[in-house]
Amino acid sequence: MIRIVRHASQAVWAIACLLMLSLASPTWAANPVATAKSVADTAIGQKCISCHGPAVEPGIYGEWKKSAHAANNVDCYDCHKLKAGEKGAFLHNGFSIQVIVTPKTCANCHKAEVEQQQRSHHAKAGNILASVDNLLGEVIGGPAAVNAGCKQCHGSTVELDSKGKPTPQTWPNTGIGRKNIDGSLGSCSACHARHSFSSAQARTPETCGKCHIGPDHPQLEIYNESKHGILFNAKKSEMNLNSKNWVVGVDYTAAPTCATCHMGATQDQKVTHDVGERISWTLRPAVSTKLNMVRLASGDEFDQPEGQALPKVGDAVKGSKVVEILTWEQRRDKMKDVCSACHSNTTVEGHYKQFDDVVDLYNEKFAKPIAGAMKELEDKGYLTHQPMDAKIKWTWFEIWHHEGRRARHGASMNGPDYTWWHGMYEVSQHTYFKWIPELKEVVRQKDGNEAFANMLLEKYFKPVAGHDWFFNGMGKDAIEKVRKGYEERYGKGTMK
Amino acid sequence: MIRIVRHASQAVWAIACLLMLSLASPTWAANPVATAKSVADTAIGQKCISCHGPAVEPGIYGEWKKSAHAANNVDCYDCHKLKAGEKGAFLHNGFSIQVIVTPKTCANCHKAEVEQQQRSHHAKAGNILASVDNLLGEVIGGPAAVNAGCKQCHGSTVELDSKGKPTPQTWPNTGIGRKNIDGSLGSCSACHARHSFSSAQARTPETCGKCHIGPDHPQLEIYNESKHGILFNAKKSEMNLNSKNWVVGVDYTAAPTCATCHMGATQDQKVTHDVGERISWTLRPAVSTKLNMVRLASGDEFDQPEGQALPKVGDAVKGSKVVEILTWEQRRDKMKDVCSACHSNTTVEGHYKQFDDVVDLYNEKFAKPIAGAMKELEDKGYLTHQPMDAKIKWTWFEIWHHEGRRARHGASMNGPDYTWWHGMYEVSQHTYFKWIPELKEVVRQKDGNEAFANMLLEKYFKPVAGHDWFFNGMGKDAIEKVRKGYEERYGKGTMK
Amino acid sequence: MIRIVRHASQAVWAIACLLMLSLASPTWAANPVATAKSVADTAIGQKCISCHGPAVEPGIYGEWKKSAHAANNVDCYDCHKLKAGEKGAFLHNGFSIQVIVTPKTCANCHKAEVEQQQRSHHAKAGNILASVDNLLGEVIGGPAAVNAGCKQCHGSTVELDSKGKPTPQTWPNTGIGRKNIDGSLGSCSACHARHSFSSAQARTPETCGKCHIGPDHPQLEIYNESKHGILFNAKKSEMNLNSKNWVVGVDYTAAPTCATCHMGATQDQKVTHDVGERISWTLRPAVSTKLNMVRLASGDEFDQPEGQALPKVGDAVKGSKVVEILTWEQRRDKMKDVCSACHSNTTVEGHYKQFDDVVDLYNEKFAKPIAGAMKELEDKGYLTHQPMDAKIKWTWFEIWHHEGRRARHGASMNGPDYTWWHGMYEVSQHTYFKWIPELKEVVRQKDGNEAFANMLLEKYFKPVAGHDWFFNGMGKDAIEKVRKGYEERYGKGTMK
Repeated sequence: MIRIVRHASQAVWAIACLLMLSLASPTWAANPVATAKSVADTAIGQKCISCHGPAVEPGIYGEWKKSAHAANNVDCYDCHKLKAGEKGAFLHNGFSIQVIVTPKTCANCHKAEVEQQQRSHHAKAGNILASVDNLLGEVIGGPAAVNAGCKQCHGSTVELDSKGKPTPQTWPNTGIGRKNIDGSLGSCSACHARHSFSSAQARTPETCGKCHIGPDHPQLEIYNESKHGILFNAKKSEMNLNSKNWVVGVDYTAAPTCATCHMGATQDQKVTHDVGERISWTLRPAVSTKLNMVRLASGDEFDQPEGQALPKVGDAVKGSKVVEILTWEQRRDKMKDVCSACHSNTTVEGHYKQFDDVVDLYNEKFAKPIAGAMKELEDKGYLTHQPMDAKIKWTWFEIWHHEGRRARHGASMNGPDYTWWHGMYEVSQHTYFKWIPELKEVVRQKDGNEAFANMLLEKYFKPVAGHDWFFNGMGKDAIEKVRKGYEERYGKGTMK
Repeated sequence: MIRIVRHASQAVWAIACLLMLSLASPTWAANPVATAKSVADTAIGQKCISCHGPAVEPGIYGEWKKSAHAANNVDCYDCHKLKAGEKGAFLHNGFSIQVIVTPKTCANCHKAEVEQQQRSHHAKAGNILASVDNLLGEVIGGPAAVNAGCKQCHGSTVELDSKGKPTPQTWPNTGIGRKNIDGSLGSCSACHARHSFSSAQARTPETCGKCHIGPDHPQLEIYNESKHGILFNAKKSEMNLNSKNWVVGVDYTAAPTCATCHMGATQDQKVTHDVGERISWTLRPAVSTKLNMVRLASGDEFDQPEGQALPKVGDAVKGSKVVEILTWEQRRDKMKDVCSACHSNTTVEGHYKQFDDVVDLYNEKFAKPIAGAMKELEDKGYLTHQPMDAKIKWTWFEIWHHEGRRARHGASMNGPDYTWWHGMYEVSQHTYFKWIPELKEVVRQKDGNEAFANMLLEKYFKPVAGHDWFFNGMGKDAIEKVRKGYEERYGKGTMK
Repeated sequence: MIRIVRHASQAVWAIACLLMLSLASPTWAANPVATAKSVADTAIGQKCISCHGPAVEPGIYGEWKKSAHAANNVDCYDCHKLKAGEKGAFLHNGFSIQVIVTPKTCANCHKAEVEQQQRSHHAKAGNILASVDNLLGEVIGGPAAVNAGCKQCHGSTVELDSKGKPTPQTWPNTGIGRKNIDGSLGSCSACHARHSFSSAQARTPETCGKCHIGPDHPQLEIYNESKHGILFNAKKSEMNLNSKNWVVGVDYTAAPTCATCHMGATQDQKVTHDVGERISWTLRPAVSTKLNMVRLASGDEFDQPEGQALPKVGDAVKGSKVVEILTWEQRRDKMKDVCSACHSNTTVEGHYKQFDDVVDLYNEKFAKPIAGAMKELEDKGYLTHQPMDAKIKWTWFEIWHHEGRRARHGASMNGPDYTWWHGMYEVSQHTYFKWIPELKEVVRQKDGNEAFANMLLEKYFKPVAGHDWFFNGMGKDAIEKVRKGYEERYGKGTMK
């Protein structure tokens, strides 16, 4: 059948289009593109398919054909048309079109979703790359690694060649914070992959794992080892992923995916594409803080760390006016509302206590003391002001950016292996047995002795709970008990 | 429909309960809770649901509704009731209940399963944490990391607050060796997740991977890369996971999961919840030994390493009497019985030969020589008696606890990448190029020379097969051949 | 039903066989074994099953029963028979059979597939092990680790014991390059697992991940994090994996698996079991080259790196005659043909540009300079001619063999996390902060100063773009901008 279509695509398409028109339904009638659609545009769409149909682009066509778009009379031209003269427009067989479809285009039909996404943390992911702060990638690695690596998640800054087509350095790219020619940010197909743009697919954890994976932000790995992920994998067929409505506790109860907790509808909350809304800690930087959120009349929003002055609704801020404040407690309450679909209050509060305690432990015992000492090393000339030019800088970078995040993310999402083995085990080992020896070496290189290093340890580490064993040893009794325990379990001569 | 229930839950529930009563069947009649159940208890169960139903706790309710429990008239109150005055009991709307349901409660209906589980290695997983031997986590990491990390697999020691509710440091926790208030050990929901308590879910490899994952015991990763895991993932729909009976070769032939081999029924063996029964090697400690098993009249059991005196049936041991001995050969035979559902005898014997050879190689070439040298370093004052206070102690810890386990586990379950790259490759590299240099450094720090280190190498390494290249070089001919082979494959100038 | 069969297998089998005979169809008639099959052989096959049926080998029998083999009257004896006197043949209940079924046997029916496989790169995977170039495994690790590790992917050299059965050191083994007793190479069941030999299973990415996984060739991990893998996991049910024909764009459009791109049929290309055919770069060695392919009249083929003299069709080469040349551009065109089923030309060209740029960056900035310096260290006596006997040799080995491959593979298959974090991030960090310090140490050990090391850096690194920051620092302005960017994002005192 498909092979026939291949050789007689135009004729078959004429019939198919007639059939589609005769199936016009209220669903489609409610669709702004479909209703507003001119006869001319419909004809152009058919023309697109007469070439880009199953014979030449069977994958694109086949996925589109299964999509809600096809079912609602939204075709190639509806998304790819662009007024002649606009940046990125070029003439193709007499029609003015664009290669890259941006959130601006998607907003023609999906206004609320795009508004939420444009103000979100996701939309700003390209900032790390558009500025020069991506030294690590550009300078030490190399630009090619940034294009095929960092930017594939963070988003490129799209550039056009002389023919108005995107340059190969900046596209293909579906980074979540892509800086588009039209000024919009991100790429809807980062999550809703072409050309079916399926919600079911976007709801799978693997979709988020495109970027939320790996040594520095292993959210997918943590999810998969958590009870949540175990249940999802065991009960995927009960997840009702294809349902239009997807309210946790109503449409499905088997398990939450990433989308459930960070975006999903509950009985009391609507779905949101502002993914950071329900997050109360930032687990990203060297030292974690709780985050309040400020929303502006401009449609934008930003995070304000706990402890920093918070504007009030109505205040003029960043060239706009504050329209809403979400404190970190309110953001957390939004998340707890999701939890409560499946968990009692005691469980939810217990989880947050265990999670907060891990963040506090990481912050207070490790991150702040090291950050304090690193700053002093730089201020006193033991280290340059240049980033990443000494081993100790890499060690500290990996402690906070890789290992410390793994511990914090692990605790946030119930992945014990990540909390401990990939997380705090590495943070503590590398603090005591890499960073401290390197600190002493840095000082010895300059001073010929370790006095300043020991002073820094006394100043930043000694006052903090948990380092006593390092300064004073473990105590004979404690050690004897420990040895006994290990030897009973593992036999003589192991844990030494 | 569910939304209607939400607003009229009690009325609907009255009808539902009548329907359920009218469906009473032999299955349910055979259930001790259901048959013994008083009219009063049934009424209380309905009362629970009138609040904790779909409107307020839709996830808990929804999963329970799909469960065998619901189908067999086992409801909230049957599991959560606890006699007033017992530890953990508290009054809730006039009813005496408990938050945490323990194996003791589950044993009311699932007696055999709980008896097997209580005597198993799983039930004792909390011992590592209830004693002080968890120094690594508590002292070097920090208590918060232990609560959200280690204890989430090993199990917490549950403590109650002044209101009789579990403290947030010790719960939520579904560790397999959790020490419960009522003296029972573990948590059935570690594997059978709330509130459907599904066997199908417990049979998936991901369930075991909650804990059997990560750098120190990557059984899930190994399974997934093995033929067994490949077939499971390709043929999940042929696994008949929802079948009540689940006999390998009868109810399914597509692939084994963890549960198949370690717990599953065969044509000649019943299912068991004593997960260690079919294991003949312990791959956990620094040096592996084969393990005989001693079962006691008390219902408990313990492992006795090969080579240690084994009691006889009838002997008085540990305050009880020996009722059964399973030698390591008998334990292995139980596993081979599973293998033989899908493999010929030649294949099974070949597998065990390849597996045993890897364990022997690890034991004899690496683990025993290092352990011997480490003991002597400590005995002679080169290292303290304090655990984990020198880099070389961490190196040895990771060689046996992480890398050596990966090699041994990899060989046991046919994961070649783990056997070699994550396993013996790292064991050998780190022995020769981390541990030996650190040994020399430790000795040099004290003696100003390396003589004692070299003596230890001569004593512990030289007599062992496989270290000749280290002491005498590889020999000119061998090297030339090797170079030639590499250069043919990879080109000039690589493998140097 | 199966239990009945167990106790009356022969009777039931007689009936089953009659039924099967009566179902003889054109499909089967086209099958050379089935059509050529003698009445005697059919009777022997039934005899095999009378013992090896569901009672004794339920897994083997059950999987075979579901297979296309069973449906086409191909049974145990058709594959396991071997003429008496041939190597590997032994008498079993009066019948001369073989344990291991090799590609030679499979070729009786699957001629084209085996011919493609025998000439492919896959078939030669055992070469690394059959020669002595596996020093790393055999000498530094140990033979047992090679048997259960390396050889399980690369393939053992099968040896027979005195009874004609394979030795346990060399079998079980389904390595893709196994050297069989009959001279054939590899094992069809490496991918088509026994005893269903399913195409659907062989098409899953996990099948390839048996070997293409892990620190040195993480293709499965990269696929899984790519859009391709995300879509496969989300839309597995739309993949039509069980279809006999499996043409991308015709039979499925949801996602490509490994098999799609490297072996799969398109509207213009047939399926091939010559897996390397569509590959234009080799990403395996220390320095990548593009590869032309030379096919010989003998049925064999080999790769010729770009830049090396290429024979012409008709030339006498390696005892045979050249029948076909595929340049690297032609090989790439074959791959692009697959891409084009789902991607526009702009996307495909953009992908290859981004990929090529990463390989070039790795080659020029890192691999060639290090390889040059390593060669000179050895030539000048700073390092021995012996492989893997100094830390710096391991460092370089892991840079190219692990990290550099991860970067290159990541870029080839759109896994940004592998391209950067597991790839170029590690390559660059370890070049600057492990290999260079070790280079200086090696030189200092011999010369008492670092002059020769600095000369090597000047010679091999300084002329290459991208190392300027290392020699001249980053420049005050650049650093200030970088610092500002980081501090805005992460707060004061982090990126130092």
